[in-house]
Amino acid sequence: MLYSLDLFGTFVFAVTGSLATGRRSLDLFGVVVLGIVTAIGGGTLRDLILRAPEVFWVSDTTYLWVAAGGAVATFLLVRRYRLPTKALLVADAVGLAVFTMIGFRRALELDAPLAVAVVMGVMTGVAGGVIRDVLAGRVPLILRKEIYATAALAGAVLLVLLDLVLPYTHVNDAVVMIAVLLIRLSAVRWQIALPVYQTRD
Amino acid sequence: MLYSLDLFGTFVFAVTGSLATGRRSLDLFGVVVLGIVTAIGGGTLRDLILRAPEVFWVSDTTYLWVAAGGAVATFLLVRRYRLPTKALLVADAVGLAVFTMIGFRRALELDAPLAVAVVMGVMTGVAGGVIRDVLAGRVPLILRKEIYATAALAGAVLLVLLDLVLPYTHVNDAVVMIAVLLIRLSAVRWQIALPVYQTRD
Amino acid sequence: MLYSLDLFGTFVFAVTGSLATGRRSLDLFGVVVLGIVTAIGGGTLRDLILRAPEVFWVSDTTYLWVAAGGAVATFLLVRRYRLPTKALLVADAVGLAVFTMIGFRRALELDAPLAVAVVMGVMTGVAGGVIRDVLAGRVPLILRKEIYATAALAGAVLLVLLDLVLPYTHVNDAVVMIAVLLIRLSAVRWQIALPVYQTRD
Repeated sequence: MLYSLDLFGTFVFAVTGSLATGRRSLDLFGVVVLGIVTAIGGGTLRDLILRAPEVFWVSDTTYLWVAAGGAVATFLLVRRYRLPTKALLVADAVGLAVFTMIGFRRALELDAPLAVAVVMGVMTGVAGGVIRDVLAGRVPLILRKEIYATAALAGAVLLVLLDLVLPYTHVNDAVVMIAVLLIRLSAVRWQIALPVYQTRD
Repeated sequence: MLYSLDLFGTFVFAVTGSLATGRRSLDLFGVVVLGIVTAIGGGTLRDLILRAPEVFWVSDTTYLWVAAGGAVATFLLVRRYRLPTKALLVADAVGLAVFTMIGFRRALELDAPLAVAVVMGVMTGVAGGVIRDVLAGRVPLILRKEIYATAALAGAVLLVLLDLVLPYTHVNDAVVMIAVLLIRLSAVRWQIALPVYQTRD
Repeated sequence: MLYSLDLFGTFVFAVTGSLATGRRSLDLFGVVVLGIVTAIGGGTLRDLILRAPEVFWVSDTTYLWVAAGGAVATFLLVRRYRLPTKALLVADAVGLAVFTMIGFRRALELDAPLAVAVVMGVMTGVAGGVIRDVLAGRVPLILRKEIYATAALAGAVLLVLLDLVLPYTHVNDAVVMIAVLLIRLSAVRWQIALPVYQTRD
């Protein structure tokens, strides 16, 4: 179940990642690279920093195939059809929710302190998109106005609280994933944003 | 003592890192991320490449809290007050001096060869700022005209020489930190720079 | 023999890496950093992701010296002389061929699955250049039109096939290096490219 969700998130991020290259003239290979990087970049950085015994896609190459498949499919489909933007936005939010939760749990499994687990949850959710934006020559979206990483942060902190109050079961995970999803989709729907940095001069 | 200096450097780099985002419209979260990345990015890369048993802020989350605190404080203060530019420049140079020395020592502790220790000293001092600039969509400052990384390099080489001549004590560390500080501040004061690359055509 | 080829690739990548900074006003140190990053960046990322016991240039600093030497030599020569563009293009293709093969073999030595070894071959060949382009503020070349990473990918897949059919000898390695070289040089000569991403709207 969790594994299916994880693969679903990987697929979705590969799709949105390769789409995000937008109108730039990238070739097939470039699009596939950006798709894969978006899908597995966050988890890779997490496993490196946590010094996991193996990076997740090195021990299980299914992730690699799913990500490559998502990117190639997008490349082929986008030349013929308009993709359903709204469905993709929801799918991307599901991916964010799943990755945040999995990143948090993975950190705890590897005996990281709680504060580190929160950072790892957020990082697993957003770092892939950040690397993609940097490679595509853009200031990463999450550093700008939308509530995206903030939804992941809220979810990770909620996980800490739930684990304190309740015995750990997968119910906590489910509640948190739904919370991240709702926060993210509300932010999109009503264009909620954090205060913006303004220098005084 | 060394630990306090290290935390001071972390705090200062978080402040200057989140300030360096300048007039861009980053939201609160974006500013905090850039501040933290600047403060702990160099040391993280160092620990990954040296295959340290644990990345420093995973085993001691104090660094994470200090960096986040520095970034949030900056975000709040900068909207009301002009920050003291000159004091920040000096503080940043202190951070550079401390991080260079600590990066070098950490590499030797982990049995790296001397040449690698020099690279690690420089990397600990400057890589955080490089990652910040890349995320903020700029060509990294240190690749351009100022003597910044060069001050770190000079300090690391000086450490190698001092360790050869004198028995190792913290006096060597102190001398080198002061040297890096003086080189950096002199370069700022008199606008000294390295020769610039010019293609012939 | 293999070791000499590896050092040759390192030297060549340091040269082309520091040249690629082009007309930007980078100082000496910036040029050297870009040269070294181009030369050892791909292999560093590979060793980190494969969790190699040591990153290659930490255990053998020759790579570091060769890369620094190539970058400094370029910096000095380019101010006086026009460099031989065609020879550099061929040398760069040789570097790509060597690094792809070495990355693939290194992954297998560390017991990675075949799909991961293919990724590592390509990554060793191209990631250094990608990091260089990101640092220099450009959208990485390999994500755009030319057949470059694709030559590495073809070579790595060919290695998988050869290893299946023939007993493993260095003949396989040589055949693959020649194949990568020919694909890359043909692409340059006749301007062959992959299909480009085009959104429909």
